[in-house]
Amino acid sequence: MSSQTEPLIVQSYLGGKWQTGSDRGAALVNPTDGFTIAFASSKGLDLGAALDYSRRVGGPELRKLGYAQRAALLGKIADVLAAKREQWFEIARKNSGNTKADAGMDVDGSIGTLKYFAKVGAALGDSNALADGAPARLARDPNFQGLHIGVPMSGVAVHINAFNFPGWGLWEKAAVTLLSGMPVFAKPATSTCWLAKEMVAAVVEAGILPEGSLSILCGSPNEMLDHLQFGDVVAFTGSAGTGQKIRQHPRVQQQGVRVNIEADSLNAALLGPDVSDGSASSHFFVREVVREMTLKAGQKCTAIRRVLVPADRAAGVASALVAALSEVRVGNPENEAVGMGPVVNGQQRKSIENGIKSLSKEASIRYRPAKFTPVDADPEAGAFVPPTLFEVANASQSSLVNDLEVFGPVATVVPYRDKDDSFAIAQRGGGSLAVSVFSEDTNYLADAATALGSSHGRVLLVDPSIGDSHTGHGIVLPSLLHGGPGRAGGGEELGGLHGMWLYHQRVAVQGSGTTLTAIASRAVEIPK
Amino acid sequence: MSSQTEPLIVQSYLGGKWQTGSDRGAALVNPTDGFTIAFASSKGLDLGAALDYSRRVGGPELRKLGYAQRAALLGKIADVLAAKREQWFEIARKNSGNTKADAGMDVDGSIGTLKYFAKVGAALGDSNALADGAPARLARDPNFQGLHIGVPMSGVAVHINAFNFPGWGLWEKAAVTLLSGMPVFAKPATSTCWLAKEMVAAVVEAGILPEGSLSILCGSPNEMLDHLQFGDVVAFTGSAGTGQKIRQHPRVQQQGVRVNIEADSLNAALLGPDVSDGSASSHFFVREVVREMTLKAGQKCTAIRRVLVPADRAAGVASALVAALSEVRVGNPENEAVGMGPVVNGQQRKSIENGIKSLSKEASIRYRPAKFTPVDADPEAGAFVPPTLFEVANASQSSLVNDLEVFGPVATVVPYRDKDDSFAIAQRGGGSLAVSVFSEDTNYLADAATALGSSHGRVLLVDPSIGDSHTGHGIVLPSLLHGGPGRAGGGEELGGLHGMWLYHQRVAVQGSGTTLTAIASRAVEIPK
Repeated sequence: MSSQTEPLIVQSYLGGKWQTGSDRGAALVNPTDGFTIAFASSKGLDLGAALDYSRRVGGPELRKLGYAQRAALLGKIADVLAAKREQWFEIARKNSGNTKADAGMDVDGSIGTLKYFAKVGAALGDSNALADGAPARLARDPNFQGLHIGVPMSGVAVHINAFNFPGWGLWEKAAVTLLSGMPVFAKPATSTCWLAKEMVAAVVEAGILPEGSLSILCGSPNEMLDHLQFGDVVAFTGSAGTGQKIRQHPRVQQQGVRVNIEADSLNAALLGPDVSDGSASSHFFVREVVREMTLKAGQKCTAIRRVLVPADRAAGVASALVAALSEVRVGNPENEAVGMGPVVNGQQRKSIENGIKSLSKEASIRYRPAKFTPVDADPEAGAFVPPTLFEVANASQSSLVNDLEVFGPVATVVPYRDKDDSFAIAQRGGGSLAVSVFSEDTNYLADAATALGSSHGRVLLVDPSIGDSHTGHGIVLPSLLHGGPGRAGGGEELGGLHGMWLYHQRVAVQGSGTTLTAIASRAVEIPK
Repeated sequence: MSSQTEPLIVQSYLGGKWQTGSDRGAALVNPTDGFTIAFASSKGLDLGAALDYSRRVGGPELRKLGYAQRAALLGKIADVLAAKREQWFEIARKNSGNTKADAGMDVDGSIGTLKYFAKVGAALGDSNALADGAPARLARDPNFQGLHIGVPMSGVAVHINAFNFPGWGLWEKAAVTLLSGMPVFAKPATSTCWLAKEMVAAVVEAGILPEGSLSILCGSPNEMLDHLQFGDVVAFTGSAGTGQKIRQHPRVQQQGVRVNIEADSLNAALLGPDVSDGSASSHFFVREVVREMTLKAGQKCTAIRRVLVPADRAAGVASALVAALSEVRVGNPENEAVGMGPVVNGQQRKSIENGIKSLSKEASIRYRPAKFTPVDADPEAGAFVPPTLFEVANASQSSLVNDLEVFGPVATVVPYRDKDDSFAIAQRGGGSLAVSVFSEDTNYLADAATALGSSHGRVLLVDPSIGDSHTGHGIVLPSLLHGGPGRAGGGEELGGLHGMWLYHQRVAVQGSGTTLTAIASRAVEIPK
């Protein structure tokens, strides 16, 4: 219990009403001091009725508007969220242990993504279908033609989000979905659902969206998946294991529900073979690795886990990383001097500590403070984990380095022999969300794009000309694809308006010139 | 055993060698007389080594060529197949009981699809990556840019095909895959693998393709899926049940192998509310339903299973269908007067007869010849099933009509009340590959495209101007998407060059203007 106030009850907004579960439910804690700040329960809530309401009311109401009208609603949501920015930062600090930089990624990332889709969606006009190309002749008779269009799916989009981005995770999915004309049914991770709930409440109170188009379930999902049906879409972000469970769920299988998965992955950063000690590229590389290890206390599905460096430079890079990591002040995010806060809760801390123990069997610890005292916080009560750097003598020494994701401020330096070896090791992650490559050799960078492209969803190529202006390895931009093959789940989110295909059915239409002209006039081509 | 000759042994082409299993394996029969004509065994074959060979040798060899060079190889394959067309028709008759029209769909469909991709692929030049748009600014610094590209997957494409199209199923998948730069590992359905094997043998003998780029496994797949790994793609055509098993296979899950599924579905044909008795549209509709029921003896995953007609026209349409069906001569496909051959074997005949029994509990039989004697064939030894037409009094009378696919010459007339009801009933199939709509009302047809588009992969809209020139409800064109949501598996094949995305990873690339210009110059934009 918090020493100051009674814990809050985090409600759910379902079927157009705020609802509360019938028991106290799960505790939400402040990871800085371990106090319980809220409870969320979904016990006894009628999820079948709630999902049905989204489908029956929300979908049709949304599709009474066209793309551009819905885009305008996204702009209004962004404005509402921007007006309460300070409130979101406070919740993010209290419930997620976020520093201002951490919370900025989540909160400003939400607002920025909504504004982006408000802007690009405005160009789509008032239609309710996408066109992919123009009618084209199909046979001898020029009057028999074909056309591909995209039609919004008829069900509800269920968004199952991870604990690390309660704000951005909600809105990056919701923006594309609402723009597409599908109702959103959000299920944030319970441990940090407070921010998501408050954001939804602000939007509901502002009366921006049509009835039924935005719902949120706080607490356990219970039997939610049993109520899914054909026409629904599930977009999940989280662990590979949970992703597989969703995909294998009998109801999902039997109804052929579309599922998109973004799973954690063993993302790598590569320092090019050409980069010399003390160069600008070397500096940019070390700075980025440290940023990725410490931002959000390393709790990002895109974070760098494997630091690939030429074998003869491994010692130097490791030393530079150790020097930078030892400058990071870990502690209470309320203290402005603190550069890294706690992880989300004691359970995650335990999981990370176990991961560190496992990795220690195959890799040596290069940095981990022997005596560790968080700033302005109790090391026992808070969920603090100091940054920890591993190294391996060679890439084949450890399979865990390519396989075990420790979801905290933890990374491993892996030496490589040559260019081919650098690409081969990066690929050993078995499919990742993002990889970044630092080099001054344009050919090496271009080769990396194709060599690593088949196993990654995003490739960041940093030459010195963008060393200070690139947006970062871990930052997901709304205009670029987010997702990755293999272990990363095989999903595709965002990527600008292309992301709307997740919420549309692509369909081939065949007919006469007259019929296809009529259909084409009701659809809009996605601008490149 | 055939009375004339010793049964053949259908070999497999794996690891660049023709191989034979260590036992006799499964029998392939002639469904017209029930004689065994061949055996196929894969017992003891080293499938792990074979798949590895495709990945290690076939993939890199193929990707030494660019798109246009590979497109040229497809043209050569088409020529080799065209030169032996009569031989393929003979095998299709003997092993699949195909009439000339049936075999034409399979054989000429193969050649046509290869020629189509040879032609459209020629425009792609010698690059080995796709570009999706041009580099675009990502942040304040105009030099920091983003671009989406497509990179061929690094593994092997495993194609698991259905018994009904041993030729076309092989080549429609192989054409797109080879063009994309991935090696093909084909696993035809054992019961009709003879044609697929002979076609592959002709192509191998002609020395067209690089070593390792085309393999075929005839017989049981044994533990094939256990050898899959990240970077592979599985494209499956067949039953929804088998599709689910593939998707849930532990190795597929654990490695995040990309899976595309085309499953059978309860496709509908709709007669518009505006169509009057005796009109041209009515005639086109009846003709198409009969064609779909009898072509390939109804063994097409796209075939019309549900015949939706306005309630007040149901009796008239059913009578017209009965009149047409009673003209169909069923029997030995060698007899030129025969319009419909047997189904593929006794097991399928049994399965269809069981399906008819089940449907009979909820629907009444409108047509099924009481005394049935196939032309030039033994009714007991051959796998003959006469065309069978059911009807229901109203759509809510039977759930089986929307749920049980009888994979033979079987369809059900379902009356509907009005426009909305017609669309609602069509959607009750839970996701289908194709739906066709016959009407003279452009608005109704255009409404059908969006109303049915979210639950179908293809919508054929027939007005009288294309009544004679359209290519048919069940015909899959290489330029149009083949696949459907929900029950139909959620897959996307073909659709012109768009189909290549199944064999590419879409990846976002971020970098400086210089780097992205270099990458863009190595990639080719898919022409619309």
